[in-house]
Amino acid sequence: MTGQPLPGFRDFYPPEHASLRGIFSAWREASRRSGFSEYEGPELESLELYTEKSGDEIVGQLYHFKDKGDREVALRPEMTPTFARMVAGQHRNYKKPIKWFSIPRLFRYERPQRGRHREHYQWNCDIVGERSPCAEAELIATLCLGLSLLGLGSKDVVVKMSDRGWWDRFLEKHGVKEENKPGVLRVLDRLEGATPEQRKEKLGALAKPVEEAWEGNVHDSEALGEIKSALGKMGYGNWCETDFRIVRGLAYYTGVVFEVHDRAGKLRAVAGGGRYDDLLKKLGGEDLPATGFGMGDAVLGELLRDKKIESGKQEGADLFVVAEGAEKDLALSMVGSLRRAGFAVDYEPGFPKWGKQLELAEAKGARWALLVGREAKDGKVGFKEISTRRQGEARWIGQKDGSICLEPSPGDWAKVLA
Amino acid sequence: MTGQPLPGFRDFYPPEHASLRGIFSAWREASRRSGFSEYEGPELESLELYTEKSGDEIVGQLYHFKDKGDREVALRPEMTPTFARMVAGQHRNYKKPIKWFSIPRLFRYERPQRGRHREHYQWNCDIVGERSPCAEAELIATLCLGLSLLGLGSKDVVVKMSDRGWWDRFLEKHGVKEENKPGVLRVLDRLEGATPEQRKEKLGALAKPVEEAWEGNVHDSEALGEIKSALGKMGYGNWCETDFRIVRGLAYYTGVVFEVHDRAGKLRAVAGGGRYDDLLKKLGGEDLPATGFGMGDAVLGELLRDKKIESGKQEGADLFVVAEGAEKDLALSMVGSLRRAGFAVDYEPGFPKWGKQLELAEAKGARWALLVGREAKDGKVGFKEISTRRQGEARWIGQKDGSICLEPSPGDWAKVLA
Repeated sequence: MTGQPLPGFRDFYPPEHASLRGIFSAWREASRRSGFSEYEGPELESLELYTEKSGDEIVGQLYHFKDKGDREVALRPEMTPTFARMVAGQHRNYKKPIKWFSIPRLFRYERPQRGRHREHYQWNCDIVGERSPCAEAELIATLCLGLSLLGLGSKDVVVKMSDRGWWDRFLEKHGVKEENKPGVLRVLDRLEGATPEQRKEKLGALAKPVEEAWEGNVHDSEALGEIKSALGKMGYGNWCETDFRIVRGLAYYTGVVFEVHDRAGKLRAVAGGGRYDDLLKKLGGEDLPATGFGMGDAVLGELLRDKKIESGKQEGADLFVVAEGAEKDLALSMVGSLRRAGFAVDYEPGFPKWGKQLELAEAKGARWALLVGREAKDGKVGFKEISTRRQGEARWIGQKDGSICLEPSPGDWAKVLA
Repeated sequence: MTGQPLPGFRDFYPPEHASLRGIFSAWREASRRSGFSEYEGPELESLELYTEKSGDEIVGQLYHFKDKGDREVALRPEMTPTFARMVAGQHRNYKKPIKWFSIPRLFRYERPQRGRHREHYQWNCDIVGERSPCAEAELIATLCLGLSLLGLGSKDVVVKMSDRGWWDRFLEKHGVKEENKPGVLRVLDRLEGATPEQRKEKLGALAKPVEEAWEGNVHDSEALGEIKSALGKMGYGNWCETDFRIVRGLAYYTGVVFEVHDRAGKLRAVAGGGRYDDLLKKLGGEDLPATGFGMGDAVLGELLRDKKIESGKQEGADLFVVAEGAEKDLALSMVGSLRRAGFAVDYEPGFPKWGKQLELAEAKGARWALLVGREAKDGKVGFKEISTRRQGEARWIGQKDGSICLEPSPGDWAKVLA
């Protein structure tokens, strides 16, 4: 057996996990500040939840199989169908607009490449029950806040907005039949970087009007105007621009759609979303307007690395208890008490030689060593700041659950030494 | 389409998710205080990772299938094989003992019942590279700390400890062949609640010596003695007892094993673990001693409900901005600024009638309403504590990114009113 995960899957060792947790923290904090409540759903759902509503692209990339009960099931490739199912089930219990977020893990069988794996985490925020474009503005503001909490700004990323409703009318005007629209939109979604010849080949007679639509600014929709105005007030005006090249691949979008891209244009979209006013009704629920976005951890992680931003760092313990073998029992009771008092405390459970314990304390990145030597019996212990080698003395007062049992308390050691 | 997830799978709506987050917080905090670093692995792994090493029980309950690349894959039913694979891959980069934890989501096709679903979250802590039983003591202390952070104590739960090494020698002595041992241990693992007749039927000639082993206390192992002593020092002596009825079903345990049970004995095990010194070597890695435990969210959740403990509550926003339509733009810039300053701020993006906004603020559980009326143009706004209806006045100083832009700051409103 090799130490490798399946192709396209990732192992998160502690340093990588710390980066991931940093991203999650920013997502959760932006959601909290913006008034979204967290939910989660199953990672395995009935296959039909995806086959019926999400469009062909996703279905071709599904991890699906028959379970031991002969049910056709699939690993979720996106969160929106589960979200829609859950909202349909209980929306009567919640005041509108419903503002929920989640950080699901999603699965797609795709060719692994930079910023694209077969599993990823995705921040999903959705608003249900608000028909006006201020819902999109609220979502985009939340997304910008999340990115800025990670240290990214409008010089790094741009929110490109478009209007699927406008594209719908455009295709109608140019004689594209209703049933062909999803296919044409999917082609449009993939024209990024295509040459004029390739566009012509894919779009035929539509190529010219499409190019005009891309270049002109005549088609700015009323909804986009409202969104831009609100985002300007909220402090994100310079993060956003209109770009009708954006159409989004998924079939269920009905109105404004948007994507976040790195300004340098080197990476795939960092986030994407839009309005899907018909989906809840289609899934057997009520006719509720809805809009949302998803932001994956993978492309975002690439962008953060490009910008040399460290989203999270592995933390060492506050204290590492170093004890002489004879004081092992006392050391253990200190460990128990200090942990109950809230400190992160580590030690070498075998209590090897003093020097080896100190070495481990340093290797594991602990801030302080608590030195439990022969004088500990009389209540005298030492402490040492590992990075500076500065030392001090403290008294061990005894085991008191939930209260500080060292004087001075480890929280004051830096002050004592200063 | 119904609003239901697949049988045995759970939807976590915001209130249930808040409870789950409370459990995760306790698990993470206990891990942090105890010096464990977080990692995560793929939810889908190669099937052989499980078929070869985990024993029959798990294999019969696997969600497994062929992926689009014709690989035999399985949803992880437990974390230990992934952990062992990851450690085998990179243990040279880490100082021993390695202390890692994870909160994976796991999948088993079982008959759903109380405290048992087809997916659950499981807190996993493992120590690699420590052959002495102080590693088990450290794990059990961490587990007790996690439970106590949730409000559970030694009157609620008991850690039952046993020694698989002892059982191994016992079976040897009674002539059970090496290849039959896993089967007999699995039978022993399931005898809970069986009548003497049923035991006799299952165990034959072994029934009598097994019963003697259960009742007698002659077999307390040296390892168990050390663990108990260390746990006593760390403050968890009264949480633990020896109970040789515990053998654990999984095939890979080699030494001390333990389970956490509710004192009332009404529920399945809350947690379980033990030493698996051979597994890393078997999986192609080095010969490294290892021990660990897993604690699921489902039985724990049942126990918390039984004890009327609320592990987490959905939090409302700090402020809900209520504005007259004419002041909408100003209100939006306040929302943006206050969120950047760290407050959780909600509002009704449509800015309906004043009374309706206040109603929503209350329904959504916000603590304060920030009242943006006609005088806001001159910098005057009101604030209202929603639960007490007490009101005050503040000045809006303007939009300053990252700094407080209201005087007094919302953080001081409670003091101002007191």
